[in-house]
Amino acid sequence: MAKNLARLFGLLSSTKTELSRRCARVLFRTTLNRTVMLRAVPSILSPKPRDFSLPNPSWGEEMMRLYNYYNSQSEEETGGEEEQGGQWTRLPSYNRSLKYAIGGVYLSKIIQSKARLFTRNIRQTGSAFEYVVFFTKDKQKCVCIFQAGHLLEGPPGHVHGGAVATMIDTVTGTHASLHCAPVMTANLNVNYRSPIKLGSTVLIESILDKQEARKTFVSCKITSSDGSKLHTEATALFLSISVSHLLKG
Amino acid sequence: MAKNLARLFGLLSSTKTELSRRCARVLFRTTLNRTVMLRAVPSILSPKPRDFSLPNPSWGEEMMRLYNYYNSQSEEETGGEEEQGGQWTRLPSYNRSLKYAIGGVYLSKIIQSKARLFTRNIRQTGSAFEYVVFFTKDKQKCVCIFQAGHLLEGPPGHVHGGAVATMIDTVTGTHASLHCAPVMTANLNVNYRSPIKLGSTVLIESILDKQEARKTFVSCKITSSDGSKLHTEATALFLSISVSHLLKG
Repeated sequence: MAKNLARLFGLLSSTKTELSRRCARVLFRTTLNRTVMLRAVPSILSPKPRDFSLPNPSWGEEMMRLYNYYNSQSEEETGGEEEQGGQWTRLPSYNRSLKYAIGGVYLSKIIQSKARLFTRNIRQTGSAFEYVVFFTKDKQKCVCIFQAGHLLEGPPGHVHGGAVATMIDTVTGTHASLHCAPVMTANLNVNYRSPIKLGSTVLIESILDKQEARKTFVSCKITSSDGSKLHTEATALFLSISVSHLLKG
Repeated sequence: MAKNLARLFGLLSSTKTELSRRCARVLFRTTLNRTVMLRAVPSILSPKPRDFSLPNPSWGEEMMRLYNYYNSQSEEETGGEEEQGGQWTRLPSYNRSLKYAIGGVYLSKIIQSKARLFTRNIRQTGSAFEYVVFFTKDKQKCVCIFQAGHLLEGPPGHVHGGAVATMIDTVTGTHASLHCAPVMTANLNVNYRSPIKLGSTVLIESILDKQEARKTFVSCKITSSDGSKLHTEATALFLSISVSHLLKG
């Protein structure tokens, strides 16, 4: 994989410095920075991907109500320009992180071309993870609206503990990568307080606790959409990494 | 949901005591006990389901080698009779837990009929979670052989942290339910040591640490198939519950 990557980056970049710069900017999560990069590269490298965080017909009434609430207080990303107005910013979400980094359209054809992001791997809308993440201007807080589809079952009629952990990893990891991309999950500690019904819409709130050198600490809770019922509490630790960490396996 | 359940159990059972007895035996995980029950009920209630823990053509060389190793030391479940010979017992695995409990074929048509177990929700073999769990005769230890498909991606070319947590919840939860079913996950604490490559086969080992009243404590690690590389370490806590806990939502 490393060899193929090097070859591809060699095609895209004529100097070693440039290669190194580009490698460092390959992101592994859906971050503000990814969209910024997307806009900066030639269109041949970045055909318009489907953004899974936009409404689709499977979104129920509660999902749409919450989406409209946060979206009405949001602004689109401004590509590195100073953000103005709006308390929240919506994050786009794709079915592969690699594909949308610089040169990623080609990389994704070479490296595990069939691979798909775990939370976006099912075509049928509404059957698995439907979610959208917003973050505050100071990036201290994220909120995710999550509608749980019928393919996420654990206990009868309720969401699997692994699917809950998956959403926590996704939201907290996205949050950490806003501050320091790329990152890898080092620890997830999840306390399950009450089960989440299939088909329901819940809120996942993520708070940046602290940053220490390569470490980013995030805490998180899942509540009913009106905040009255606590479903899950969690903490997460992420480490910033170099791309080579992954390439060398 | 509770009303429908009560109606159904009313049809199946003529006395309140009988209803209570049957409710208590609805299991939420793939356990030895489930198969035992399956054999005890009329065939109209239990058509032969697909057992996902049996080999299919997507299983790679390493997955097959390990399966054959553990299977050669295994015995089939004996339906409550005393187990003889064989260090390991293979656990069957279905795409819904509810469906295979007593009366569950009907229940599954009433309650969230489209629901599927999160780890068995994709039809295409080899693309997501391929796994089989074996447990020792004294039920102190489980081992799971896990082949990670291309739809489980997190970091490029590697398994999503949420998919790793899902397998840990699945294996440790299955283990806890061998001792005390039904159970619900109360805590998962996962330390990610090194990423798992998509397509690779790894071993997940689960050890029963202790039981205290309703609590079952299990620890777990994921290693390369030869045991030389540690990928993940985790602890898990499960609480035994009554069925009514879920039905009342």
